[in-house]
Amino acid sequence: MDFTSEHRHDDGVLERDFALGDIPGTLWTTGSAPAPLVLMAHNNGLPRRDARLVARARFHAATYGYAVASIDAAGCGDRPRTAAADQLRVDLRRAMQAGEPVDEIFEAMVGPMVDDAAPEWRTTLDALLDLPDVAGPVGYSGWMALGIRLAVTEPRIAAAGFFAGGFVPRAVRAEAPRVTIPVLVLLQWDDEGNPRQRALNLFDAFGSVEKTLHANPGGHLGTPRFELEDGARFFDRHLR
Amino acid sequence: MDFTSEHRHDDGVLERDFALGDIPGTLWTTGSAPAPLVLMAHNNGLPRRDARLVARARFHAATYGYAVASIDAAGCGDRPRTAAADQLRVDLRRAMQAGEPVDEIFEAMVGPMVDDAAPEWRTTLDALLDLPDVAGPVGYSGWMALGIRLAVTEPRIAAAGFFAGGFVPRAVRAEAPRVTIPVLVLLQWDDEGNPRQRALNLFDAFGSVEKTLHANPGGHLGTPRFELEDGARFFDRHLR
Repeated sequence: MDFTSEHRHDDGVLERDFALGDIPGTLWTTGSAPAPLVLMAHNNGLPRRDARLVARARFHAATYGYAVASIDAAGCGDRPRTAAADQLRVDLRRAMQAGEPVDEIFEAMVGPMVDDAAPEWRTTLDALLDLPDVAGPVGYSGWMALGIRLAVTEPRIAAAGFFAGGFVPRAVRAEAPRVTIPVLVLLQWDDEGNPRQRALNLFDAFGSVEKTLHANPGGHLGTPRFELEDGARFFDRHLR
Repeated sequence: MDFTSEHRHDDGVLERDFALGDIPGTLWTTGSAPAPLVLMAHNNGLPRRDARLVARARFHAATYGYAVASIDAAGCGDRPRTAAADQLRVDLRRAMQAGEPVDEIFEAMVGPMVDDAAPEWRTTLDALLDLPDVAGPVGYSGWMALGIRLAVTEPRIAAAGFFAGGFVPRAVRAEAPRVTIPVLVLLQWDDEGNPRQRALNLFDAFGSVEKTLHANPGGHLGTPRFELEDGARFFDRHLR
């Protein structure tokens, strides 16, 4: 893992970009004592530099003292785009504009995205836990499809906050009953791109003894600010 | 309002029983400065001295500094039982044991219970707000059916936490869209006496711009302890 840049913000958060082979990422920390790590991912392959993810990461670091890390998925952010992914995005936009069903396009797009991303996050986790200021236990926050896959394949992840904002591929949905770590599912009740009942079904399917659902009205981007705190407090219960 | 007994607990909470005409109640406070009031009611006409309500009330007073009050409904707790209410309870138990539908029995029991209780709570609210150590704005916590009725008829109530643990009569369900104050609905996902979909429908129906649903697995009595804190923090956002 090579650190490629470093910036200390006014709120005390140290933001470091890193490269791990082909994988570009960012680590946000405060202080030098080992802090529990939260892996933070976006839905749908958004770049790790997206303003909303960065704000969420810095909040968890500055206010709650977590080490927070994110990476760009293949074809996203600082990584070269691929013709195949671009074509699927074109297909998706055309189908949505035509009012056609999009489930199969999502399946073809998001299924491989999860399959490809999960091992990269695990590689990143190996490298991060070797750093002196990063420790376990590890939390996961964000993209539900990737988080389910990581929760059932990565025993170092001790708690997961899932944002019900995306399409979860069939193969990943089938893994939901094998999720047994504490889970906090955050659902936007009127999320235009995420039918409510699918998120409720996934919440119902998780095998965890402790699982909590938080739902608020409004669309995908309307999550109230207090849920940021609730998410960090959830990690405090399980990672401290 | 006559105070009939007074006890200072080790945690600093002053517990005072009162009588307001026929209505017996309890007020829990800390300190002498005016504190925002939380009205706290049980489902199904349980007595105000029930251990779970008392623990919840004292937590809100001791840890968060609220003034908390509860009263006994007609036929409950310290008030004389009525033959009609006793008969309905017998009918209900027999129907449940026989596996018969109970909706109409609940309707006949809980509908009048809400109609009778709501004006008593408003009378109590008048008297409590005249005390030097009790102030508005006012919160409501607990029994959903009564809380909906109070939320739409009592403008001094500024925020309400509803526990989805009981049967909500038809007339009260119809009032749900007129609830516009901030609401926190707490649902036990596997509540044996409270079909999940009914609670989700009520959450959906509330007219509030800010409404939040918290759901956790387990039966009616299985609410995790951290929801106590979440409930008090909800009041902190709206009553402070």
